[in-house]
Amino acid sequence: MKVVMSVPELETFLDREFPEMHQGGKTMFVEHVQDGEIVMRFKADERHLRPGGTISGPSQFALADVASFVAVLAHVGPVALAVTTSANINFLRKPSPGDLVATARVLKLGRRLVVIDCEIAGGTDGQLVSHAVATYSLPG
Amino acid sequence: MKVVMSVPELETFLDREFPEMHQGGKTMFVEHVQDGEIVMRFKADERHLRPGGTISGPSQFALADVASFVAVLAHVGPVALAVTTSANINFLRKPSPGDLVATARVLKLGRRLVVIDCEIAGGTDGQLVSHAVATYSLPG
Amino acid sequence: MKVVMSVPELETFLDREFPEMHQGGKTMFVEHVQDGEIVMRFKADERHLRPGGTISGPSQFALADVASFVAVLAHVGPVALAVTTSANINFLRKPSPGDLVATARVLKLGRRLVVIDCEIAGGTDGQLVSHAVATYSLPG
Amino acid sequence: MKVVMSVPELETFLDREFPEMHQGGKTMFVEHVQDGEIVMRFKADERHLRPGGTISGPSQFALADVASFVAVLAHVGPVALAVTTSANINFLRKPSPGDLVATARVLKLGRRLVVIDCEIAGGTDGQLVSHAVATYSLPG
Repeated sequence: MKVVMSVPELETFLDREFPEMHQGGKTMFVEHVQDGEIVMRFKADERHLRPGGTISGPSQFALADVASFVAVLAHVGPVALAVTTSANINFLRKPSPGDLVATARVLKLGRRLVVIDCEIAGGTDGQLVSHAVATYSLPG
Repeated sequence: MKVVMSVPELETFLDREFPEMHQGGKTMFVEHVQDGEIVMRFKADERHLRPGGTISGPSQFALADVASFVAVLAHVGPVALAVTTSANINFLRKPSPGDLVATARVLKLGRRLVVIDCEIAGGTDGQLVSHAVATYSLPG
Repeated sequence: MKVVMSVPELETFLDREFPEMHQGGKTMFVEHVQDGEIVMRFKADERHLRPGGTISGPSQFALADVASFVAVLAHVGPVALAVTTSANINFLRKPSPGDLVATARVLKLGRRLVVIDCEIAGGTDGQLVSHAVATYSLPG
Repeated sequence: MKVVMSVPELETFLDREFPEMHQGGKTMFVEHVQDGEIVMRFKADERHLRPGGTISGPSQFALADVASFVAVLAHVGPVALAVTTSANINFLRKPSPGDLVATARVLKLGRRLVVIDCEIAGGTDGQLVSHAVATYSLPG
């Protein structure tokens, strides 16, 4: 499983193809790419917070979806048309305030289907806050 | 499975307890409540659209999460602390432009766990665009 | 969504292609087929029971998998090579003793992916005991 | 996350509480236990094989369920009443003939809910064949 896009290439592609992702200010950043895995940081702002400073479930889902999509891109190249077909997420504990860091790992890289495992860790303690598995369909 | 909150009671509760839901303008509206089921309408604005006018996966997930939470509230009463523990979503087809309508049905109403099935239909043709199952944990 | 195989055609196909399903005695029977939906009955024997006479989770999963596969077959024709790619199951309540009845409904019938919703009801009271969603990949 | 049961204690507990697991011959064996993780081996026999010698999806699900349950037991002690509430499984590739090895890892160990990640690797090449996440409810 070879990575075929670098961090700057991924950032440029996302900015160009999915400008709506950054509406209201950019919050998600590709931090690291290696064979089989990418890391993404989410700097939440008020839009994503629930009372008590915790990051809402749907915002965690959005992070898992973007990080998993970036993991697909990083391994198949700039295919804007990869489509999420299903996702499963378990919310494990309330994140303490602070950034969330998503680590997305390729479980299967098929010709038509890609399966990604995504762990989201949070806050200053780095504890696991949620875990998702997402499936992507490739065109053609 | 008896409903214990009306549409106006649900709307008032959401507005008071989850004001952050309506940031940037209110887009989700409880339309109907009956024993075992609630219906919610999502009037997407530009924030939720992908190129081509389609509503993004994470926005569909957010709708399923809110509609499922409302189904929990409607049957257990105003328990702000019900927590999503897991969710599974299948994206079935690209929604055509227009509102999305989520129908959330109670599969299990336990003392500690509630399981909700949520179908999202869309556009002018009313075709199913996604299907989710979510689990909620009740406090106490 | 048109059904293209009848109950006897489905039974004959399963018996010929998946004889291992009936090892130890046939327990699963196609009962009904209509556009978009099939019904399957599971007559559990001791192999599938947990202490107290309840049917184990993996046996319920096996029923959901077979019923969902039959729903695929019924709509795409005898394609032995349809492959389960993912499944999600929620166990809702302990089944009381007696047969289980699975109703599998086609949520999406794509060229490459089929998504099935499967409800399992049980016992003499017909209460819902589990709910599954399964995804199948079609060859070619 | 401390392990509180040893491999022999786990085996003894399973043999006593779930004798039906071994109907037709014992096929699942606890191999290893450490803080946060257990490993289980599945020696499939003809009952679990599909044509071509591959192990069926439901048999892989049964393995994931047992391994995840053993991971729960290993960390909470001999609680026969822990109940699977939901499970999600992705089938990644056909296993080549040979044993399957399941590694079950505790993602969350709550007072009422335990979430387990289970990877199943197979054959002589040790490739990942499926991946499951299961949730267990604890009594009391």
